[in-house]
Amino acid sequence: MGIEESIKIYGAKIDELLKEIIPPQGIDYLSEPIWHHMHTGGKRVRPAICLITCEALGGNPDKAMHFALAVEIMHNMFLLHDDIEDGDTIRRDQPTVWVKYGIANAINAGDYLLACAYKSTLASPVSLEKKIKLLHVLTLTYEKTVEGQALDINARAAEDFTVDKYMEMVKLKTGYYLACGMIGGAIVSDISEQVVEKIWTLGKTMGPAFQIRDDLIDLTHGKGRGGVIGSDVKEGKASFLYSYALQVASTDDKKHLRDIMLKPRDETTDNDINWVLEIYKKYNVLKYAQDYAENLIKQAYNTIDEFPIKDKTVFKEIASFMAKRMS
Amino acid sequence: MGIEESIKIYGAKIDELLKEIIPPQGIDYLSEPIWHHMHTGGKRVRPAICLITCEALGGNPDKAMHFALAVEIMHNMFLLHDDIEDGDTIRRDQPTVWVKYGIANAINAGDYLLACAYKSTLASPVSLEKKIKLLHVLTLTYEKTVEGQALDINARAAEDFTVDKYMEMVKLKTGYYLACGMIGGAIVSDISEQVVEKIWTLGKTMGPAFQIRDDLIDLTHGKGRGGVIGSDVKEGKASFLYSYALQVASTDDKKHLRDIMLKPRDETTDNDINWVLEIYKKYNVLKYAQDYAENLIKQAYNTIDEFPIKDKTVFKEIASFMAKRMS
Repeated sequence: MGIEESIKIYGAKIDELLKEIIPPQGIDYLSEPIWHHMHTGGKRVRPAICLITCEALGGNPDKAMHFALAVEIMHNMFLLHDDIEDGDTIRRDQPTVWVKYGIANAINAGDYLLACAYKSTLASPVSLEKKIKLLHVLTLTYEKTVEGQALDINARAAEDFTVDKYMEMVKLKTGYYLACGMIGGAIVSDISEQVVEKIWTLGKTMGPAFQIRDDLIDLTHGKGRGGVIGSDVKEGKASFLYSYALQVASTDDKKHLRDIMLKPRDETTDNDINWVLEIYKKYNVLKYAQDYAENLIKQAYNTIDEFPIKDKTVFKEIASFMAKRMS
Repeated sequence: MGIEESIKIYGAKIDELLKEIIPPQGIDYLSEPIWHHMHTGGKRVRPAICLITCEALGGNPDKAMHFALAVEIMHNMFLLHDDIEDGDTIRRDQPTVWVKYGIANAINAGDYLLACAYKSTLASPVSLEKKIKLLHVLTLTYEKTVEGQALDINARAAEDFTVDKYMEMVKLKTGYYLACGMIGGAIVSDISEQVVEKIWTLGKTMGPAFQIRDDLIDLTHGKGRGGVIGSDVKEGKASFLYSYALQVASTDDKKHLRDIMLKPRDETTDNDINWVLEIYKKYNVLKYAQDYAENLIKQAYNTIDEFPIKDKTVFKEIASFMAKRMS
């Protein structure tokens, strides 16, 4: 069975079991906003990768299921809080939770999801030792992702945002998160501490590669929010493209670019977006980003080659699946 | 040494050690807002009670210290998020974090504190078994407190708010929280599961008693926010007094009361507050609340009498300390 097929099958199972961890009703002012959000879906790729890793390394994926659910739940907790912080009003064609239920209920809904993530991990049918390891992984990932989110929302206003700062932010915000599912699966299947360390490193190259591709899509194909080009520009998002442009553009172009990024969303015109696109072409920003992401993917494959285990197939398949999603 | 002395000594130690768990600097956009908030202080009563319980039951309080810190950190996480949700602008004469640093940074600061609470618990120098128990207690408390907070912020607009609903909300919001420190201390000192269950019950009477007293103070002495009487009325807070008044007042009085509670804070006049005070007098609300709280305290002492341990002194001292703070 190919990895895409596995993700589909595990994804459906995860969707089903999520209802056992997060009560679909009965928790006043929490069940409803949370499930409004959960139904906006996603393919449950990250938790599926946890189970696939566990199985490929000889473990029993049933024993990793609670952690896989925790990974998915924590992911959604971040989406809920990020939507408030970014002022995003629409997610997958539905109003975001803070728009529909107010900021206070959206904060609580996110907070409650985190409780569910810990509950799920605590219910894992594994030894006490492994359970503590899983809780360490969950907590480290949670901590670092918050650190990344804090850098992200403050980056857009920073005058000295650079590619290095982008990379620092995105390693924290996406790197740990991408690795944690694989690591959980590896822990349940008894893999050594050295491999775990290597997987963290893998996350810190694959995560940013994936994010840079996401930044590129915004200006090439649009991001599913009705396929509109440039919503990151409207939002003033601290993208890779923006960080590189700030490094290479002339003082005047830089100033104008920053002014556009700092404009409130509804004041950003189509002309502004076209101007940004032109500037990115002028300074070869898209090409640079594409090359940068490809280089990260190469690094990721190199990291996998260094994994101190015999059969590295599953990690190569996961990397190749993620890379394909980036094309 | 009396309990007040113990709280003072342990409180100072906790204050010192908090800096080791929450980095006072170096975490961009998180250290600063968090420590702005942490410096607004508090007497660290709840974590001190954890250590006092542990010691009195024959345990080593040093081994409960990490959990005590977690209790204090989680408490502050809730204060940070609650201030956003309630629109509170001042805490102990300082601007609240969301006012000073914006809502996005305040959400992240709260989220990060929760990571610190789990990190601290995970670092506890106890057996794996006890550590897992402590993590269960932390997670249950966190979950239930969020549930209570969700009921709280939605209660003010509810037409059918009653004393029963108030009690349900406040047991969740304050009961688990009050118990969890004592329970953590008891777990570290090897106390039986039966006692742990009894302490949860104790929290669910002491917590509400403490909260009702807090609601009363707002209309008798004022709440330290410059000593102003009636800030709960301005805020439209779902207090015990409000819940009882809704049950006993005439239809007209009820309607007018609700209208005042739902007014935006800056539109509530002194006349409105005086009217509410008069209504509370008319329906004997303050006396009812006082009696209700005293009855809860009696229940708390009865619960302690049922504790299946020989020496119940520490719990009686804690209850009496809390009751004194309520006078």
